[in-house]
Amino acid sequence: MSTEKCFANGSATPGPVPKGHIRLYSMRFCPFAQRTRLVLNAKGITYDTVNIHLKDKPDWFLEKNPLGLVPTLETPAGEVIYESPITCEYLDEVYPEKKLLPSSPFAKAQQKMMLEHFSKVTPYFYKIPMGRRNGEDVSGLEAELKEKLAKLNEDLVNKKTKFFGGDSITMIDYMMWPWFERVEAYQVKQFLDGNPELKKWTELMLQDSAVKATMFSPDAHKAFFKTFLDGNPDFDYGL
Amino acid sequence: MSTEKCFANGSATPGPVPKGHIRLYSMRFCPFAQRTRLVLNAKGITYDTVNIHLKDKPDWFLEKNPLGLVPTLETPAGEVIYESPITCEYLDEVYPEKKLLPSSPFAKAQQKMMLEHFSKVTPYFYKIPMGRRNGEDVSGLEAELKEKLAKLNEDLVNKKTKFFGGDSITMIDYMMWPWFERVEAYQVKQFLDGNPELKKWTELMLQDSAVKATMFSPDAHKAFFKTFLDGNPDFDYGL
Repeated sequence: MSTEKCFANGSATPGPVPKGHIRLYSMRFCPFAQRTRLVLNAKGITYDTVNIHLKDKPDWFLEKNPLGLVPTLETPAGEVIYESPITCEYLDEVYPEKKLLPSSPFAKAQQKMMLEHFSKVTPYFYKIPMGRRNGEDVSGLEAELKEKLAKLNEDLVNKKTKFFGGDSITMIDYMMWPWFERVEAYQVKQFLDGNPELKKWTELMLQDSAVKATMFSPDAHKAFFKTFLDGNPDFDYGL
Repeated sequence: MSTEKCFANGSATPGPVPKGHIRLYSMRFCPFAQRTRLVLNAKGITYDTVNIHLKDKPDWFLEKNPLGLVPTLETPAGEVIYESPITCEYLDEVYPEKKLLPSSPFAKAQQKMMLEHFSKVTPYFYKIPMGRRNGEDVSGLEAELKEKLAKLNEDLVNKKTKFFGGDSITMIDYMMWPWFERVEAYQVKQFLDGNPELKKWTELMLQDSAVKATMFSPDAHKAFFKTFLDGNPDFDYGL
């Protein structure tokens, strides 16, 4: 698409997905959609992006995916795939370049169990800044997040590997990364200090080409997240 | 194992998993664990079962799986796999007999999306009888469950297939079945009446050999569920 600006209700329906391409319905600052962008980039897949105004979704988007979720993938055949881990696994199966999930069924199951654990961590990244903004006592939530981050750190210590699935980046790293890219915006960056292996992991991730290709600066995340917390998200921030 | 009785804390640690076997840590009436039992049976996998006292879990079980969840699989190599969809997919990959997930990446993604939808339905099967027991007004929950069951019925109507993944049983059917086996115990059987295709599906499922091999009678489910609602579940009911 020629624009990164979000499509709101009433916007023109984008054309059909070109042959040999795949389309991602996304929102530029959504951490879940970034998972899919990371996988698309890591695997060198040709794709186009349609960003969606998540507060005023186009009818044509809701026809494709009645849940109105991003990320959503669409193929030239009109097949629609959503839920971030499902989109990522689909891409890993369909596009043979650089497999991101291990081929061993047990190693694959381990990555899925890790992801299941991590899905209990992500809500804290949102609840803590939201609670702070509303003047609530978030010390309990902070203690819980600290404990969960310490466990992730311990996991790397026990494995003695640079990344969560070994010494090179695999799927699980990309599934976790978007929340760590946003630690400043979420005001939880200080919790990495007591977790040196986890901090080292974030530094290594920042050197990855797919991370570089999909990331926003801490300042951009902060600026967007402020508009989000204020209830009036600026999906086109920076354009 | 020679007993189906549940292992509570203080019980003897079961021996190592025999070569060529796989072990399922289970609870006889748990719908999530039944998913794994269905897959084990459907694929003709040799396994042994250790039932766990979920209100008084053995320390040795918590060492294997700190979350203390059933189903949990253990291999002769000491590999541990948990979360019901992860265990089922693992089994489908490791044991080549009768594949339950489709080989096409899109068809597989569709089953996973269906499962994601269904995971929002399962809580109602528990909340409605629990609310009724506590004298709460559950009419809102009932209306929501009815709507969700109607959507499942519509799904079968649109697909024009006997089962959710086609005209033969596939993974998604086994993922959904355990809750339908318990509709009488959950006091929601009447909601199937307005949904003839879904009702027909339950009747077809009852003829499946893996369903027959793993099921309990409605009366047994009712009797167990009563002890569960009363806060004192009889995991050994009927033994």
